[in-house]
Amino acid sequence: MPAENDIHCLRLTRTEGVGPITCRRLLERHRSPEAALAALSAMARSGGKTTAPRIPSVAEAEREFERTEKLGGRLIFINNPDYPPLLAQLDDAPPVIAVLGDVALLAKTAVAIVGGRNASAAGLRMAETLAEDLARSVTIVSGLARGIDGVAHTAALRTGRTVAAIAGGLDVAYPTENTNLQRVIAERGAVITEATPGTQPQARHFPRRNRLIAGLSLGVVVIEAARRSGSLITTRIAQDLGREVFAVPGSPLDPRTRGGNDLLREGAVLTETAQDVLDNLSGFGALFPFGPKRRGLSEPPPCDFDDPPYLDAASNLSQARERVVSLLGPTPTKVDDLMRRCQLSPAVVIAVLLELELSGLVETLPGNRFALLMDAASQSHQTEQNV
Amino acid sequence: MPAENDIHCLRLTRTEGVGPITCRRLLERHRSPEAALAALSAMARSGGKTTAPRIPSVAEAEREFERTEKLGGRLIFINNPDYPPLLAQLDDAPPVIAVLGDVALLAKTAVAIVGGRNASAAGLRMAETLAEDLARSVTIVSGLARGIDGVAHTAALRTGRTVAAIAGGLDVAYPTENTNLQRVIAERGAVITEATPGTQPQARHFPRRNRLIAGLSLGVVVIEAARRSGSLITTRIAQDLGREVFAVPGSPLDPRTRGGNDLLREGAVLTETAQDVLDNLSGFGALFPFGPKRRGLSEPPPCDFDDPPYLDAASNLSQARERVVSLLGPTPTKVDDLMRRCQLSPAVVIAVLLELELSGLVETLPGNRFALLMDAASQSHQTEQNV
Repeated sequence: MPAENDIHCLRLTRTEGVGPITCRRLLERHRSPEAALAALSAMARSGGKTTAPRIPSVAEAEREFERTEKLGGRLIFINNPDYPPLLAQLDDAPPVIAVLGDVALLAKTAVAIVGGRNASAAGLRMAETLAEDLARSVTIVSGLARGIDGVAHTAALRTGRTVAAIAGGLDVAYPTENTNLQRVIAERGAVITEATPGTQPQARHFPRRNRLIAGLSLGVVVIEAARRSGSLITTRIAQDLGREVFAVPGSPLDPRTRGGNDLLREGAVLTETAQDVLDNLSGFGALFPFGPKRRGLSEPPPCDFDDPPYLDAASNLSQARERVVSLLGPTPTKVDDLMRRCQLSPAVVIAVLLELELSGLVETLPGNRFALLMDAASQSHQTEQNV
Repeated sequence: MPAENDIHCLRLTRTEGVGPITCRRLLERHRSPEAALAALSAMARSGGKTTAPRIPSVAEAEREFERTEKLGGRLIFINNPDYPPLLAQLDDAPPVIAVLGDVALLAKTAVAIVGGRNASAAGLRMAETLAEDLARSVTIVSGLARGIDGVAHTAALRTGRTVAAIAGGLDVAYPTENTNLQRVIAERGAVITEATPGTQPQARHFPRRNRLIAGLSLGVVVIEAARRSGSLITTRIAQDLGREVFAVPGSPLDPRTRGGNDLLREGAVLTETAQDVLDNLSGFGALFPFGPKRRGLSEPPPCDFDDPPYLDAASNLSQARERVVSLLGPTPTKVDDLMRRCQLSPAVVIAVLLELELSGLVETLPGNRFALLMDAASQSHQTEQNV
């Protein structure tokens, strides 16, 4: 059962017309959320409104708590010690966030990786490399979108941990192709949203998600952002917050890299490797007393989730196939990586890959790399616009 | 007949062991080149040298004058009013330069465009666009090498004028594939060198050529320079001279753009268009009282220079494949561009692309564009060095 205080806090938060700044001010000015709610009604009346703002009932608030808990999630209010400290620095920090997964992860040093949904193979490759390398030192935050976001989360899961900020409710999988990824991130990292359960993400929700991404992170790395893309909104917020902005350069001939190049012109840190990011994280040294340079990339942070144990050699091939497929994506993966990750014997992996290739599910690429053929997904990469 | 003064000046310049700085000092200290030559012998003796430096004879100097004039060229000494004013600012300005073409052009505002010889199609396309646009306002200086240099000269000829700084003698065509281009530049622009007629360009001559390029130019634009490439030597000289350095950004996955990205990190002007260059030319406003913006882009002069002919259609496919791969990079390139660049018949290009795609080296993108999957290509590119 949630505390009475939290119930009222949620009612205040969910009252129509009460934005994050108003909510925070009301809570600061009044002794309790209940007092703030009472004041709210009075204020609205004295402000000349004919109807008082509709404040959700105690039962409605309880229902939101119940639904969130049923999903395995948790509502965290801004005055709670578990509220992400960097996010709390925002003037318009969300008064409440819904979290599925490891709440403690939200307090750890994080870097966001954002970029276009219709990214090029080169962009996706950069996202993969940067996320994989950075995740050894920091948490990777992204927006669970197709393209750069999805690849960044996936790569981060290989070497470290990741947080997905989403626009819809915790129980809403979006985009559908990342349904499995969203589930895995909730299990091994954290999924965070401002939306109530059941909320279907709409265009107007994405700026809030972008604010979460920037707010949670010490820095934002932009890979392939077209001009006027959603990724640039995230970096604007980061800049306003005094967080570092990193941009991967690209050819002026590709419109997908123009936004990033503009950022470089404005002073963003030119980023080619994870070290470029770690060397320039303002505040990173303060949080990690040895400083980013001395920490380097060699020392992976302690990780409290275990990879699943080796499958029994006698395990049937279909189980192995499932595992290999889940580890593969459209981005080419080296067979060594695959073997290390799937914890199957090399012979089994080779056999499975051959089988997958013969059935047209996997393509073999030079350098002993393999990619899952996701026809529908790859087509939509090219035609869709960034959020 | 050259003036007696110039004969002695040339003898001093061509004396073994007399570098540009020594030469200049000797000329400043003594009343005449003849007096400087006399002092040189005396100084060498008193310096304890058993043999005096070998000073070329009057006849030898006269022969160099004759050979240069026979070529249609001219020797210009540093104290001559026709000596390029920006080049004269160098502490180690060459005491004499040999020029074929329009000497007056060397006094006009110039911008250098430099880059790798094994450039990608995207890089060549950038060189072409920038040179064509910039040449409407300024003279384009480059080094007549394969790749970026050649394309920059050729494109500049379409809309304006260009100066080629070369490492060998005026009568030596290098590289052979640019023989025709060298001739056209001498006719419509200027070719400049420090070397005597007949000098075959060797590796040790190229730093001098690079110094000419930087010295003649108010700014240097770098397109696709690998780390430790000759183009970066040119930019170092430009930086030391206080000239502006411009760099075109590129994907970190392509080693050919790393040098340029490094320059951006160090503060080079991020360059996507000619306007980026014109807006940042220090001293440009002073030389052109109306300022770069108001000068704008005027009418291009007529140009009858032709691109080199198509390769014989019978050329074998492996050669064609090599050429197509070298032109591709992670940045998507239009097939039209590719065809134009590689000088192979469309049928051959299509066949090669299909072959490359099937072998997983190239990905096909919407809009008839192709990109190299960098893992596959990295071996060939990474091992090659730019001059």
